Order: sequence, then C-alpha cells, then structure tokens
Amino acid sequence: KRPRELGIKIGVLPTGQYNAITDVAGVKVGQVTLVEGKNIRTGITAIIPKDGNLFQQKIPAAIYIGNGFGKLTGYSQVEELGTMETPIILTNTLSVPTAADALIDWTLNQKGNENVRSVNPVVGETNDSFLNDIRGRHVKKENVLEALKKAQTGKVEEGNVGAGTGTVCFNWKGGIGTSSRKLPEKLGGYTVGVLTQTNFGGVLKVNGVPVGEELGKYAFKESLDKSSDGSCMMIIATDAPLDARNLKRLAKRAIMGLAETGGIASNGSGDYVIAFSTAYQIPHETTQGTSSVTLLHNDFVSPLFMAAIEATNEAIINSLFMAKTTEGFQDHKMEELPKEKVLEIMRKYGRLK
Amino acid sequence: KRPRELGIKIGVLPTGQYNAITDVAGVKVGQVTLVEGKNIRTGITAIIPKDGNLFQQKIPAAIYIGNGFGKLTGYSQVEELGTMETPIILTNTLSVPTAADALIDWTLNQKGNENVRSVNPVVGETNDSFLNDIRGRHVKKENVLEALKKAQTGKVEEGNVGAGTGTVCFNWKGGIGTSSRKLPEKLGGYTVGVLTQTNFGGVLKVNGVPVGEELGKYAFKESLDKSSDGSCMMIIATDAPLDARNLKRLAKRAIMGLAETGGIASNGSGDYVIAFSTAYQIPHETTQGTSSVTLLHNDFVSPLFMAAIEATNEAIINSLFMAKTTEGFQDHKMEELPKEKVLEIMRKYGRLK
Amino acid sequence: KRPRELGIKIGVLPTGQYNAITDVAGVKVGQVTLVEGKNIRTGITAIIPKDGNLFQQKIPAAIYIGNGFGKLTGYSQVEELGTMETPIILTNTLSVPTAADALIDWTLNQKGNENVRSVNPVVGETNDSFLNDIRGRHVKKENVLEALKKAQTGKVEEGNVGAGTGTVCFNWKGGIGTSSRKLPEKLGGYTVGVLTQTNFGGVLKVNGVPVGEELGKYAFKESLDKSSDGSCMMIIATDAPLDARNLKRLAKRAIMGLAETGGIASNGSGDYVIAFSTAYQIPHETTQGTSSVTLLHNDFVSPLFMAAIEATNEAIINSLFMAKTTEGFQDHKMEELPKEKVLEIMRKYGRLK
Amino acid sequence: KRPRELGIKIGVLPTGQYNAITDVAGVKVGQVTLVEGKNIRTGITAIIPKDGNLFQQKIPAAIYIGNGFGKLTGYSQVEELGTMETPIILTNTLSVPTAADALIDWTLNQKGNENVRSVNPVVGETNDSFLNDIRGRHVKKENVLEALKKAQTGKVEEGNVGAGTGTVCFNWKGGIGTSSRKLPEKLGGYTVGVLTQTNFGGVLKVNGVPVGEELGKYAFKESLDKSSDGSCMMIIATDAPLDARNLKRLAKRAIMGLAETGGIASNGSGDYVIAFSTAYQIPHETTQGTSSVTLLHNDFVSPLFMAAIEATNEAIINSLFMAKTTEGFQDHKMEELPKEKVLEIMRKYGRLK
Repeated sequence: KRPRELGIKIGVLPTGQYNAITDVAGVKVGQVTLVEGKNIRTGITAIIPKDGNLFQQKIPAAIYIGNGFGKLTGYSQVEELGTMETPIILTNTLSVPTAADALIDWTLNQKGNENVRSVNPVVGETNDSFLNDIRGRHVKKENVLEALKKAQTGKVEEGNVGAGTGTVCFNWKGGIGTSSRKLPEKLGGYTVGVLTQTNFGGVLKVNGVPVGEELGKYAFKESLDKSSDGSCMMIIATDAPLDARNLKRLAKRAIMGLAETGGIASNGSGDYVIAFSTAYQIPHETTQGTSSVTLLHNDFVSPLFMAAIEATNEAIINSLFMAKTTEGFQDHKMEELPKEKVLEIMRKYGRLK
Repeated sequence: KRPRELGIKIGVLPTGQYNAITDVAGVKVGQVTLVEGKNIRTGITAIIPKDGNLFQQKIPAAIYIGNGFGKLTGYSQVEELGTMETPIILTNTLSVPTAADALIDWTLNQKGNENVRSVNPVVGETNDSFLNDIRGRHVKKENVLEALKKAQTGKVEEGNVGAGTGTVCFNWKGGIGTSSRKLPEKLGGYTVGVLTQTNFGGVLKVNGVPVGEELGKYAFKESLDKSSDGSCMMIIATDAPLDARNLKRLAKRAIMGLAETGGIASNGSGDYVIAFSTAYQIPHETTQGTSSVTLLHNDFVSPLFMAAIEATNEAIINSLFMAKTTEGFQDHKMEELPKEKVLEIMRKYGRLK
Repeated sequence: KRPRELGIKIGVLPTGQYNAITDVAGVKVGQVTLVEGKNIRTGITAIIPKDGNLFQQKIPAAIYIGNGFGKLTGYSQVEELGTMETPIILTNTLSVPTAADALIDWTLNQKGNENVRSVNPVVGETNDSFLNDIRGRHVKKENVLEALKKAQTGKVEEGNVGAGTGTVCFNWKGGIGTSSRKLPEKLGGYTVGVLTQTNFGGVLKVNGVPVGEELGKYAFKESLDKSSDGSCMMIIATDAPLDARNLKRLAKRAIMGLAETGGIASNGSGDYVIAFSTAYQIPHETTQGTSSVTLLHNDFVSPLFMAAIEATNEAIINSLFMAKTTEGFQDHKMEELPKEKVLEIMRKYGRLK
Repeated sequence: KRPRELGIKIGVLPTGQYNAITDVAGVKVGQVTLVEGKNIRTGITAIIPKDGNLFQQKIPAAIYIGNGFGKLTGYSQVEELGTMETPIILTNTLSVPTAADALIDWTLNQKGNENVRSVNPVVGETNDSFLNDIRGRHVKKENVLEALKKAQTGKVEEGNVGAGTGTVCFNWKGGIGTSSRKLPEKLGGYTVGVLTQTNFGGVLKVNGVPVGEELGKYAFKESLDKSSDGSCMMIIATDAPLDARNLKRLAKRAIMGLAETGGIASNGSGDYVIAFSTAYQIPHETTQGTSSVTLLHNDFVSPLFMAAIEATNEAIINSLFMAKTTEGFQDHKMEELPKEKVLEIMRKYGRLK
C-alpha cells in the first residue's frame, strides 16, 4: 500500500487523481524490469512528456544539477535552447550510452524524422551496483525501446521496477516513486507531477518523523563511510505554461523536497532534476521568425514551487514504501523499509491519520 | 530561551560550544539595532571571518544563489576569484549601498591599505518594510562601522537584533538566528557555524513537526498572496580547509536546511548563502607564482554538508524562538511565535526531550 | 572623427543611423563628466532603455559575466527574474554604492512608485584609479541623477566622457564608445546597439590589423605586469523580441567582439555584458496569471549574434579613437591613441577605405 | 604545409616544439579515420592527458559551454568534482553513445579497475552529416579503442583526420587542428596546447585578414540560412598547476580565439572547451582527508589566457589549411580552403612573412 493509503499525508496541497506524474495530462510512463539469475537487478523507466513527434514539436524544459556526481546526458542543449526533443530515459550508470543510443534510434525512426541528423537524448541514471552486476551492462537497446513502447497514462508502478529495480535509499531498498499535486483554482489550478528514482542517503524522515534515527540507521552514524552516497533522479511535469527559466526554478525546488526526506546530497550523489511543461510546444523548424506564446507571470509560480516540494518528498517516500527486499549481485541483500515498524513510529509521533 | 534549552534537539550531530557561528575559531559577529520612534525597526549584522587585514589576506569563499530575487552585492568577484576581501554585512534591502560604502571606508582606512583602489564589499539583505520605514533608509555608514567595531567572538545575540530587527518569518516575527555543528573526530573534527537573517515564508516545521498547520498559518492557505515572499540570508563559516568549489557545494546545502523548516523559496524570496573557510588565507599580492595549500579531498565533505543542513535548520528555528512581538511602521504589528503553544504542539508530536 | 568616417569599416553588416546604442528606438544616454583640479577624472554614464516607469513596466534583460573581477551590482535579480527595473548606471569602481543609492532615489521618487519598497539598481563600473583619485569617491548622487535627467536619444558623445573620463584601454586613453548594426530585412530587420566603457588590455587589433604590435605596446611584452588588467562594461540594446534566455546568449557574444579588438579578459578584468530588449515590457504587478508574448524563435537569433560581435568591436575601437590624452591623479598621464600613426598602419595593411 | 611554415604567424607568444597539444608533456593523441565507399566520412580523435590509470589518478579539469547546442557528455561531474577520470574522445554527433560506451570498456578493463562501477566518460562531437552518413552510425567501439591504443606523443596529424574527417568550417572543408604556446620564463614558462575539431561558420579572418569577405563566402551573405551553424570542440592542455576554477577561466578564453577567426557561435553551434592540467593528479580513493597541492596564484594566470586565445585561433586556422577537398554522402562536395588564393590575400594585406 502507498503511504497515503496507510494514513501518511505529506504536505498541505491536494494530489491529482493517481497521485502520479501521469496526472499531468498526456504524460506517459513505461518501465522494463530486468531481473535475471542472481546478478541482474536493473531496468529502464521511460517518461514520455507528450504523444506525437517530440523532435518536430519540442517541449519546454530545464535541468537543474543539485549535485553533479552523475552521468546524466543531454544537459547542455536543454540549458541552451530551453527545449527537450526526446523522452526521458532513466537507467543505471553504466547503461546511459545504451539508453542514449536507443533514444537516437527511436527518434530517427519516427515518421517525419527521415532527415533528422542530430538528436539530443536525455538520459539520467543512478548506480545500482550493490544489487546489480552493473559492469555487465545488461540493459540492451531493445529494453529501452520496449519501455518507450509500453509507456501509458494512468497508474504508475512503484518500488522495485524499471530503473528502480536495484536501487538503495537511506540504506533500505529504494526504487521508483511518484506523486502529484493539483493546485486549487485560486492558486491557478495547475498540476505538478513528480517521478523519482531513489538511490541516496542521509537521515530518513517520513513526514518529519525521525524514522532513520528510530530505526538506528542513518548517515555517518558509525563512521565516514560512503553509504550515504548514491543519487536521486527527479522528473517534474507540469501543465502550467512556464518557460525554461521558470522551469529551472521549479526544478530547483525538487531538491528541497528531497531535503525534507532527510537527504543530504552527499559528495557522491548525482542529484538531477528535469522539469518540463506540456502547456505548449516549440516547432523544430519554422519560417516564421516570431510566434506568440502564453506564459505564466513570475508572481504566480510560488504555489507551483510548493507543489514540487511536496510531490518530490512524497514520491521519494512512496518509492521506499513500495520497494521490496531484494537479493542480488554477489549475494548482497537489501532489506525493504520495515513498514510495520515505521507505522508504529509514525503513530508514536502522532503522524498517522 | 533557545529551542535546544527547551528540549528541541534538531539533527544528529553535536553543536559547538556556543551553538553559534562563532564556534568557528576567530569568527566575530557585531550587531547594531535601530529602533526609533514608531517607524524605524532595522539594523546591521556584521560577520568578520577573521582578525587582521582581510583585503591583504583574503578568505576563501563562495556564494550560492538559491533564489535570486534580492540585492546582495559582491557576488561575481567572489565567484570568479574564490575569495572574499571584506567582512559580510547584512542589512535591509534599500540600505545595501550604504553598507557597501561603509565597507569600502572600513577597508580603505585599514592600516596597510593606503594604496588600495578596488574593494569588493559583500552585503546581503532582506526586506523589513512591513515593520520598518525602509524607504527612509535610516541605516547610516556610522551604524555599519559601529557594528564592525563591536564585533566579537563568543555568544551571539538572536531574534530582534541587528539586521533581524524588522524581519518576518512564516508570518511570525523573524530575526537573527545562529547555530553550529562540531563534527566528531572520526568525521574530521571540523566545525560548521551558520548565521541566518530570516524573512521568508512557507509551511513552518519545527524539527519536522507541522507547527504551521497546527497554528493555522501557512503559505497559500487562503489565497495566492505574497505573504510567503521575503528572503533568507545564510552565512556559513567553517574551519575545514575547503577551496571555493567545495565551499560553493557547502553553501548549496544551506537551502536544504531551509527546506526542512518548511521554507519554499518562493518567487519573491532572495535566498543567498555565503560560505567561507578560516583554514587558510590567500595573499592579495605575492611575488611567488605558486604556493602550496592543504585542502580537503572531495570524499570527506559529506559530513560537512550534513552539518550545514542541520545548523541552518536550527539557526532559522532559533531566530523564530528568540524574536519578540514587534510594532512598527504604519502601526503594523508582527506577533512572535507563541512559544507556549509551540511547545505544546511539540509535546503532542513527541518531539520535546 | 570616428574610425568609420576615417575609412575604417568593421564588419559586414550595416550600422544604424547614429551608429550608436540609441539607434534602438527609445534608448537614451546621459553623461556627466567630472574633471576637477588635478585629481578628479571620472563620471557617470546612464543608459535608459525606455521612457516611462521602468519599475512598473520592467524590461526583459540578462547579464553575462565574462570575467567577474568587478563590482557590478544587480546581477542576481536580473538572472532570476529575467527583468531589469531601473536604468543602467556606469561609473568608477568605488562609486558603485553611490550610484546604486541614486538609482533607488530615482525610482522611489517616480510618480506611481509611492509604495515601492524594493529596488534592484543595476550599476557597472571600471577602475579609473590611474587618472582619477578613486579613493576620494568624488561622484555624488546629484551627478548620477543629473546624468539620468540629461539622457537623450540621438547622438552619443564618446571618448573622455561620463564613466569613460578616466579609463585606460590597451595602455592608451580609453573611454566611452558606441556602435550599432541594423539587420537587413531578410535577416529580421532588427537593430542591435552597443555602448562600452573601455578600461582593459591585451594586444590591440584595429579591424584585424596588429596595431598594438606595430606601436610596440601590448600585454606582457616586457614582463608579467598588471597593465592588461582593468575591465570592460558592455551594454547591448535591441528591439528584437528576445526573452531573457536569448538575451543572455546575445550578451555572451559581446565578449567575442572584445576578443576581436585583442582583449584577453585578463585575471584582473571585470568584463560584464548587460543586454536588454525594448520589444515588450513586463508589468510589476498584474492580476492576470498569464499573458501572451511574441518572441523570436531560436533559429533566427544568429544574425543578432553577429551584429552584437561587430558592434562591440567597433564600439571599443570608437572609444579609443575618440579619447583624448589626459593628465590626472598623481601627475599620471595617459596618451591617446596616435591616430595619424594608426591610420598609417591601417593603410600599410590595406585596411583603410 | 602548416600556415606558420607558409609565413602566417598568429599572435605574439612563441609556440612549443611541435606547435601542438602534445607539447604539453605526456599528452597523447590518437586518431582513427573512417572513409569507406561514398558515404562514410567520419572518425575518432582521442586525447589522453597522461599515461597510467586516469580513473585511479584523476586529472584536474573543467568544461566551459560556449554555446550548448551540442551533445557533449560528461559535463556535470567534471563541473562538480573538478576532475576528469577518462581520456577525451571526439567524434560525430550521433556516435557519442558508442564512444562513451567504449570509454567505459576501456576504463573497466584497465588493470586496477576491477572493482570500478562508475565511470564518467567525456565525449565531444560535431555534426559531420553534410559529408558523412551520420544516421548510419558507422563508428564502432573498436574504432574508439583503436584510437586510444594508437595515441602517441609528438606530431599530430591535422585536417581530414579522425573526428575531423567530415567536418565543414566557414563553408570550407574543416577538420582537426592543433597549436601550442610556450610562455617565456618571466611569464611562468608554462605550456598551453590546444586541439580543435572545426565545424562552424561566420566571417573567416586569417590572422585578422578578411579572407571570408575576399573569397565572397561568409555567414548570412545571401540569406538567413543555417550555413554558419555547426560546432567547435576545443581541448586545452596545460602543465601549469591550475585548479578547476582557473581551468574553467582558461577554457572560457578559447572562445575568444574562436572569435578572432571570425566564428560567431551561431544558434546551432555546439561550442565546448575542455581544459585540463597535467601538473598534479587527484587520487580516486584515499584514507587521508587532506593533502597538499601546489597551485598557481590568480595573479599569474593572464599570460596563460593569452596563450589559450592565440593557440585556439591558430589551431582553427591550421585545421582549415590542412584539410583537403572531400566528396561524400549524397554526392556532397566540400572544397578545401584555396590556399594559393588565401596566401595572395594575406600578401595583399601585408600579413605574410
């Protein structure tokens, strides 16, 4: 069960229908989970911002680098042009090139792209090498293309799935988590959806409750080890009409949601946020020098910021609650968050509805 | 009383002796509070990183811009050269030029600076115009120079003092707050001290407890107003031997501490972090092209990050607990945090030791 | 005479009517020159992007920091919000606070700004301390306000004027220079105007001709001295409908124009570019969450880039040709570029029309 | 023949022995050229900063993004940590993933890296699709590994070779070019070497001479076409002991050298500079929290800046002079720079020694 169903209500804003990134109309998620033998625990999570030919009709986007110890590809073109021209793929660290190559395949082969000779694939990653034989690079292009093909709107699977199959978070089994906020009409009525791939550390707090301390497991408790390293990929979708500048500001707020879960963005963490808007698209080619676009005024973005913080926080917590104990590479085992104990702790601290 | 004395213990790391920025050896704080008649509620907080001639012996430093709706001056040179050559002054928004001019005076008049013809004053601010007649620009150069003169090591006054005299935080009276962490020897043994000037909004959480919700006062509760706007200046001192790159990374973590208090870095917020190290100094002029410097390896910075997050969180909470109800400009009144009620709430949520 | 009148034609694009920043309709320039006794050689150059209340109707803008060894104030808010809310003031390094304070006066006192309590003054500078008693801070607020008052469209005075009164460039007398480009209709028909305050060094090239080498005066010829330090402020105006992202890209190109003159952006240089568009304005306050704006597509910006490069190059060369030999502080003397010799050199290299 | 042998002497500083990036001791370059049938005109250029295990002994490095319309991978980790842990590979746009994957292979298979589970491959590119069937992705991992294997010190092949096999520059055949500067002892005695992959446009200037105009071929001469698009990859090596901050500053200057050749960094250009120092290395793992490093003081970097500008300018011009007329994909043909005519023009403008 998801935390909210168990009585853990994070934040003050209402969620969207699925409490998922797919609450932003048109956004699709597709996942391929690779669990084979004892050593393969990895996968692919694909986020498609919108149907149609994204290369020909680009999506306004921004990428914020919270802590750049990571291998995300595609940053500079998004930053320079303010647009994204492929879906987003999440996978493991050493499979980024394979996923990027697959996104190129996917784009070149789309109808209307017969003359396309340049593609900026956007691929993020976290390092699942504790549970997965990452050096084996078991993700294949077919897996990536399959994830794109399977992508759909509606409910999103969480936990040990797709790019979250082998991740570790706060020294518990991490994974994929998602959440959303739907602003009341008086605050604009827009939806903000977040999807996270959680693989980082710190001092776990569930809705403010010191769960990490209570469970006796947190960063640097014993020594200066690297157990708090890892990474977090955060994807934000919104239907608010933001330009790249305001999308970047929105992206920066996701780190604040991560902070609320007790994440510390340690030295070895690759914490990246990719934010995009589905409100309008920008043509790849046009003979018109200028065009008119409707944009949200700076003064109206703050509720979106709050929504991004809350939804990122909840998406991370969701990933932890939905993940399952996993054994993998080199007989490593990572326990899932002990939900019963956590609920008890939540109750003790008066935070269970 | 400070929250920690009342039983509110934020974080897992131990504090320094004074639980203040001055726990970093050599750091001095001086404050001048301007409360005159009904309309003047403002002041100056000066942070001197180290005794001696800072222009001739510069301090390694970095500035991180969380949200740039603010008027901090001095950013680009610190970013380019990795050094700071004056103390830091905090004041109100419209008094930044006066404070900058005073820092120039202070530097030009120091012994050994007779030929100095260029100074990069570092001045931060928040907007205290709800309680203070900010348009009157009542801060004078003498006030700034006095704050510098009064600066001392040891205990730091908090609440309605210096640059915090007229600030508002989470719709309660804000002010100056400070805190520190002293890492255990196994984590390096370094000290991280933080001082904040709090003037921002969001959904207040005290050590994870939803105090803002319980008190019925939080951002966007009723409407899309600008009550969550404002700003937060955060100063981080450390004796760890960090270069400018790692100081900037440290600075970024302060925003994560702000996030833990429920801050949302709203559109109208000017959230800046200035981080400096006292571990070594860089000569203004030298005939030696190269010199040797001892620096901390990337792998060892994570506990400092955690310390900065915890100390920023606690410094903000300290500012709220130490501030007093204030009446000022245009008969505006800002209530202090109702400590009794807050302690009750903390007790209810099992968070009072 | 300006170089173009003398037969030096820089670049391939046509200029606007005045070959000045004021060729962008509505842009005004006002200058106050302070030459008093033997020691005061400084001044103010004010650039007003547009008539009316700029605080209430903000201007899309961006600032690019080429090399940040400088004291420009106002950076972070322009970067964050993509707008500028005051005119731009250029002056000497130590008079930035005075100029900023004057811009606050100017803004607070404008009709309609009675309730304004926050102003982001944009002030740039270079260091004229070789010829000017900079420590005396002889610029007063009245001088700044006078420059704003005197600002007008049309012809712009160059050389030893305003903020260029005491500057030094390539070890010759520098100053204020301006230039513009008017794109042919097929390239969009837009105008790009540039104004520079030149105070830097390197190896002077006039339209590609090695004038610095021929005159035997260039950086590091004899030793590792600091004669190539200094700074260059570059202001770009355009009537093209660019958003802040594309204005920042435009600003980056000015450094390329500086490079063509032989500038090297040395360690001690503060090279800043402020770019703004006069094509539309953004209201300070609005009850409308969204509004429609007409913007230029990325694919159409390249000719503007070329225009900015050419106009910056020419503006710098103009400043050198129009400056006059100056004596000042401590009996220092800076010779003007020996125009006759330079024209001979230009002729020798086949570059005089 | 290289331009310098023909009497074209760019800049005032002396070159190193080979006038190549390999003049920085230890730097190796390896190239694989793929010319097959009518359609394949592409290749690989590998730059190895230093012998030995670069992952275990990382290289201080920085990447500057001049204009980010490109697909370079590896940016964020270099920016965050200030180090590079692989060689640099240059190739065509759509082969970046293949090259990145090969760099991972190369690193994982090195002795001592048996437990390495994270690699940050640094791969740059330009788009050679005018002459090369880029959609065919003809570069294979073997080609990349072969380039790494072939890498050697000493003379570097220029023109149609490696990653420059199919590039186009100023509408002439571009390619690989390299150059270096060796500072006199009084300026520090350091060496700066540059290698460029040239594929961009503008208004060609050879040592300041308006060759593009004279040849009647330059950007936007006829219309707003995209012929000035393309990209330029610039690699800077130095033996000066710079940290990442000063390496980034050095990298920024390469764009100024590109500007001197008449490049305009058009909208569609991916202009990236990667700078590294061979002066010291940073261990991947260490039990020592701190270590001592000898670094160059800010005041001494300016001559290095000048060296980088000159060497980048000359490397680009070298690439044009050494490239040969090429026919390729879809019967496209790109002429080489007409050297005889260019020399005549140089003579006419008094710029041939």
